Amino acid sequence: MAAINENFLKLQAGYLFPEIERRIAAFKTENPKAKIISLGVGDVTQPLASAVIEAMKNAVDQMARKETFRGYDHSGMGYEFLRQAISQNDFRTRGVQIDIDEIFVSDGAKSDTANFQEIFGLDCRVAVTDPVYPVYVDTNVMAGRTGPAAEQGRYHGILYMPCTEENNFVPGLPDEKVDLIYLCFPNNPTGAVAPKEQLRTWVNYARENKAVIFFDAAYEAFIADPDIPHSIYEIEGAKDVAVEFRSFSKTAGFTGVRCAFTVVPKQLKAYTKTGDPVPINQVWSRRHCTKFNGVSYITQAGAAAVYTEQGKKQIKATIDIYMANAKVIRQSLTKLGYQVYGGVNAPYIWLKTPKGSGSWDFFDLVLQKAHVVGTPGVGFGPAGEGYFRLTAFAQPESVKEAMQRFATI
Amino acid sequence: MAAINENFLKLQAGYLFPEIERRIAAFKTENPKAKIISLGVGDVTQPLASAVIEAMKNAVDQMARKETFRGYDHSGMGYEFLRQAISQNDFRTRGVQIDIDEIFVSDGAKSDTANFQEIFGLDCRVAVTDPVYPVYVDTNVMAGRTGPAAEQGRYHGILYMPCTEENNFVPGLPDEKVDLIYLCFPNNPTGAVAPKEQLRTWVNYARENKAVIFFDAAYEAFIADPDIPHSIYEIEGAKDVAVEFRSFSKTAGFTGVRCAFTVVPKQLKAYTKTGDPVPINQVWSRRHCTKFNGVSYITQAGAAAVYTEQGKKQIKATIDIYMANAKVIRQSLTKLGYQVYGGVNAPYIWLKTPKGSGSWDFFDLVLQKAHVVGTPGVGFGPAGEGYFRLTAFAQPESVKEAMQRFATI
Repeated sequence: MAAINENFLKLQAGYLFPEIERRIAAFKTENPKAKIISLGVGDVTQPLASAVIEAMKNAVDQMARKETFRGYDHSGMGYEFLRQAISQNDFRTRGVQIDIDEIFVSDGAKSDTANFQEIFGLDCRVAVTDPVYPVYVDTNVMAGRTGPAAEQGRYHGILYMPCTEENNFVPGLPDEKVDLIYLCFPNNPTGAVAPKEQLRTWVNYARENKAVIFFDAAYEAFIADPDIPHSIYEIEGAKDVAVEFRSFSKTAGFTGVRCAFTVVPKQLKAYTKTGDPVPINQVWSRRHCTKFNGVSYITQAGAAAVYTEQGKKQIKATIDIYMANAKVIRQSLTKLGYQVYGGVNAPYIWLKTPKGSGSWDFFDLVLQKAHVVGTPGVGFGPAGEGYFRLTAFAQPESVKEAMQRFATI
Repeated sequence: MAAINENFLKLQAGYLFPEIERRIAAFKTENPKAKIISLGVGDVTQPLASAVIEAMKNAVDQMARKETFRGYDHSGMGYEFLRQAISQNDFRTRGVQIDIDEIFVSDGAKSDTANFQEIFGLDCRVAVTDPVYPVYVDTNVMAGRTGPAAEQGRYHGILYMPCTEENNFVPGLPDEKVDLIYLCFPNNPTGAVAPKEQLRTWVNYARENKAVIFFDAAYEAFIADPDIPHSIYEIEGAKDVAVEFRSFSKTAGFTGVRCAFTVVPKQLKAYTKTGDPVPINQVWSRRHCTKFNGVSYITQAGAAAVYTEQGKKQIKATIDIYMANAKVIRQSLTKLGYQVYGGVNAPYIWLKTPKGSGSWDFFDLVLQKAHVVGTPGVGFGPAGEGYFRLTAFAQPESVKEAMQRFATI
């Protein structure tokens, strides 16, 4: 008899976005003429950079000719031309040496942040922030690293580190030992960033405890403040204790194209039960090459174009559009008396709901009154209750109209 | 302390192809002028169909304009236009009803065949054929469903079903209970196909034992014999007990483009420890949408073009090229006195090594004497010892030259 993996049955029904979709659908049925503006799902809206378009068209042309056709990407890790560009532009320019065999190109940071836990033991104690990107938690539930869901939807066995106004939405060190630590800066959903000193305390904690940090830097391209690190490897000693997840999704509008990469330094170690160190790079390589077969050549050619002179200018111009949106949202809501966070070094604005109203109540209010969709903060964890996430990814004219409508709430 | 998943340490060093690469590299160092012909790795060489090229270029153009730009594929399952085309062309035309919410589009059959075991319990007893595509086994090792590797590289806890000349390389039913059964027809590496009656015995076995069949049909497009089923769902009752993996890799030359799909019928069930049935479609949907974020819109547009009238003609023409290669290999080797199997309904030729020589010895002989690369059968399992896999995917002129060189061995 085929047994189900019962860990999957611990997962709570209704992933956040399906529930939002359900409420929107119900609203549309009652208000068929309403023009809804979505500042909800963090999906980009600006077209791809023309450097990327051109590179992808050339790549498609190459696939049409026998002489230039490409089949499997045999390394399994991504084409060298792309990994070289990443090593040079994302790291060397910031004084960080990352070798190309420490870079694994993939189809998305969602896949990578979901899959990476798999190479660690089930007895690892996992720490996540609260609020948190649900994928980090759900994939640990699926793996069997937790008990059932308990109060407020938290799972037994995971350490939740609240991110609040008091700690500027950057958690302090836990008062118990943890082994795998998920950190995301610039943060989804709060838009918070971690200054160097705070990242340094985490790196030191991990070094002292032989823990591994899963550093999700998918939003690093939105950092405006020159003092905020883009990579955890800007912190001394981080290569001994951290993997870093990067993505072209938000950086270059690749949400519908699918390309990302993960950095796994060669000196990074995990340990056997008897305490022997095992190089994580080798184990991840085995996992990556056994369960994954590379990213489309066309996609990789497009991703490499992001690092050309033209490409860099063009993606910067697009990010400027989004960050101008973020500024409009911040300023408009502040003027309306809302308390807002984020939106300066990140495409997310974390809004405190007025008068202590609940996240879902505020969601319904904004949908009913302003026909605007945001994301209830509590959907990212109980510490998100009383908050509401708005994204800066909509068209500028939509953002402006949404803010005008907020004034009528 | 971050613990490693020690199941990964059970994996045997040297995945087959890296070892082949190592021997080729050593040969090249000693013979820098030799012109090697590869009939080894199963990678396509013909360019993409022009219908696919055109569709992908149009899709790239759409990504360049705000009005037609596409971000996330929100269903997570693949665009409806592609799933409709699959449902209609791959199944309805064969009298099989597969709904679009039973089709999950992905980046490759390697990923799907690797990942699917994850939603089943660790106590499931797994059966694989021997020889076998190593991914089926390795991913079960990683999951912890096996003991360590033992004699001849087999893992404790997995049931290996030998495929031999005696059973026409299609295994008979096991004499013990198994829960998850991996079958691949047309087979990689043997090129064997399973007639309806044999598939029916497997479907009946699974129905009686509440087992689940993982049916890998990645090579169905190469079937020439009208009596051989392309889908396991052509067998009555199979929707209750089987998932089916399909791929555009070999069908349409997508090895470098990355697109595949998995069919998970809604009536398919697994069971809790207390015997309650759980719909696998729902659990896989949760897994797929949590750990994966869809396939490139450009890729999906290209895949859909495979089902247009032009696309169908063009991919058929390419498959005809490969199958003409297969015929050349079969006929040449037969004339040379070799015993060959496969190559009629599959792009793989399974060659019996002469005089009982070992697979790796024969590999070295063919490389040294003919400068041709094949794949040692034993690399797919101990029952593959004494066999050698040749693929039909090379350029026709290379295949002919390789066969001339074989005559000199």
